Amino acid sequence: MTKIKATPENKKPESSNKFRHEIRVGWGDCDPAKIVYTGRLPCFALDAINAWWEYRLGGDGWYQLELDRNVGTPFVHMSFDFRSPITPRHRLECDVWPTRLGESSIEFRVDGFQDGVLCFESRFVCVFTIASKFAKRSAPQEIRDIVEPLIIPD
Amino acid sequence: MTKIKATPENKKPESSNKFRHEIRVGWGDCDPAKIVYTGRLPCFALDAINAWWEYRLGGDGWYQLELDRNVGTPFVHMSFDFRSPITPRHRLECDVWPTRLGESSIEFRVDGFQDGVLCFESRFVCVFTIASKFAKRSAPQEIRDIVEPLIIPD
Amino acid sequence: MTKIKATPENKKPESSNKFRHEIRVGWGDCDPAKIVYTGRLPCFALDAINAWWEYRLGGDGWYQLELDRNVGTPFVHMSFDFRSPITPRHRLECDVWPTRLGESSIEFRVDGFQDGVLCFESRFVCVFTIASKFAKRSAPQEIRDIVEPLIIPD
Amino acid sequence: MTKIKATPENKKPESSNKFRHEIRVGWGDCDPAKIVYTGRLPCFALDAINAWWEYRLGGDGWYQLELDRNVGTPFVHMSFDFRSPITPRHRLECDVWPTRLGESSIEFRVDGFQDGVLCFESRFVCVFTIASKFAKRSAPQEIRDIVEPLIIPD
Repeated sequence: MTKIKATPENKKPESSNKFRHEIRVGWGDCDPAKIVYTGRLPCFALDAINAWWEYRLGGDGWYQLELDRNVGTPFVHMSFDFRSPITPRHRLECDVWPTRLGESSIEFRVDGFQDGVLCFESRFVCVFTIASKFAKRSAPQEIRDIVEPLIIPD
Repeated sequence: MTKIKATPENKKPESSNKFRHEIRVGWGDCDPAKIVYTGRLPCFALDAINAWWEYRLGGDGWYQLELDRNVGTPFVHMSFDFRSPITPRHRLECDVWPTRLGESSIEFRVDGFQDGVLCFESRFVCVFTIASKFAKRSAPQEIRDIVEPLIIPD
Repeated sequence: MTKIKATPENKKPESSNKFRHEIRVGWGDCDPAKIVYTGRLPCFALDAINAWWEYRLGGDGWYQLELDRNVGTPFVHMSFDFRSPITPRHRLECDVWPTRLGESSIEFRVDGFQDGVLCFESRFVCVFTIASKFAKRSAPQEIRDIVEPLIIPD
Repeated sequence: MTKIKATPENKKPESSNKFRHEIRVGWGDCDPAKIVYTGRLPCFALDAINAWWEYRLGGDGWYQLELDRNVGTPFVHMSFDFRSPITPRHRLECDVWPTRLGESSIEFRVDGFQDGVLCFESRFVCVFTIASKFAKRSAPQEIRDIVEPLIIPD
């Protein structure tokens, strides 16, 4: 199985277990108000969570988790507080970290910044599934081992 | 100014002030788990809110609100509880209604159903702005007149 | 297997074997130039082709073709000529028709109109595959029977 | 005006005037066939062209071109030949270069590669406009000076 190597944007030194993912914001992400369309922001945050998995699991994002490991992590909850508009004038820096690991669920925070300004705070709950059956399961031990030391409770 | 006429899918009889918007779910909305990708769902719910405005304001959605009426309604909060996966096997029926109208904000619920099954519940808070200045303003009186009788508190 | 019934927007009388699919254009489809972002237009045309399949195959779009019939139709070519900008001020009417059916390929035209004005002309070539193997195959006979009488050569 | 600095992914050495832009392909870009959905590919190619402008114009992409320089470059033509499916197992490397600069138009090629395999070839024609008037204009001289030496005729 070919593994994706961590790329430069993933190598940033991190403080306190957070992972920083950089997103290029473009013209096509913006609406006529000249700021990023609300509907694009969840995609950005999800991209950041996927990059977090890729970084933490040695190159395996959702695609490899599902197809190679038979582990799904569907979302059961998502919430956003939008603090400041986002534009293409700066990269969007998304900080990702797990806030809780339950028996069969995992919770994330993703905070987005541009030029040092907090743009959004977001929270997510995913459950672990046996991907081929779409059936709930407990968190795989190898994932538990990786995630537990990284948790920053909310 | 050309007005968009309410189209067939908007004419469904409504119970209790709710508006129903139908969405065609397609192949391209789904991910390899064969269900709609989480990142597409906020777009669906936003499309439903935009259709609600269009229906309630005689054809004016966000585009006309912003460009013709100089009224913006940017989102400050959004949250989703995902109850059941969505597929292209049925249309997605989104029920939209306002739950609160504040001095300068409006809150919505959007619930999505497929084949009678609740797929997601979502909540939104928008603020009213003078679009050209991106400055907060109170809710325009003509909008207040239309929205107030439709509110179903949460 | 639940079948999706042809919905109102599919029932329009057609001239000369063309199928008309209506798309609601929204605020979120537009960029800061206040017109639909170029990157959204292929999605619109693809939605129209998917709706064409659904209409022609008694409710089966790409999702059912692939998962229930084991027939894939991946794209090998796509081209667009953009004639006029698209906005949310009118519905986008997409006319879809097949222009050629080869041994193992099918070609489509999709033309988009707003308020009677031609907005884009587009052309597509798909090949038929055994979906489970991603291997080329000849066009299934039951599809050939349906498509052949509908062809309008380019 | 804050300028976006060329980021690491833009610094790759280039052969023969080509610019290479790297795209992270994710789970959400894929459809149930486990490959990137056709409708996403134009967005990838457009992101690459936008990154090309940003790199060539010292940080100015379409957003800054339009809003700060009053120069629009709407697309009048786009075509794709899809050669090989794209998945999240590798980054997508997009090579971008101009193939022609006319009096008031510019043409691009964008070729996409994964793991050294050509995935798509694409061609684009844009026209220059006075953004505030959406009126055709000749190519600005400062852009002509930058682009002309980079042209690789098709």
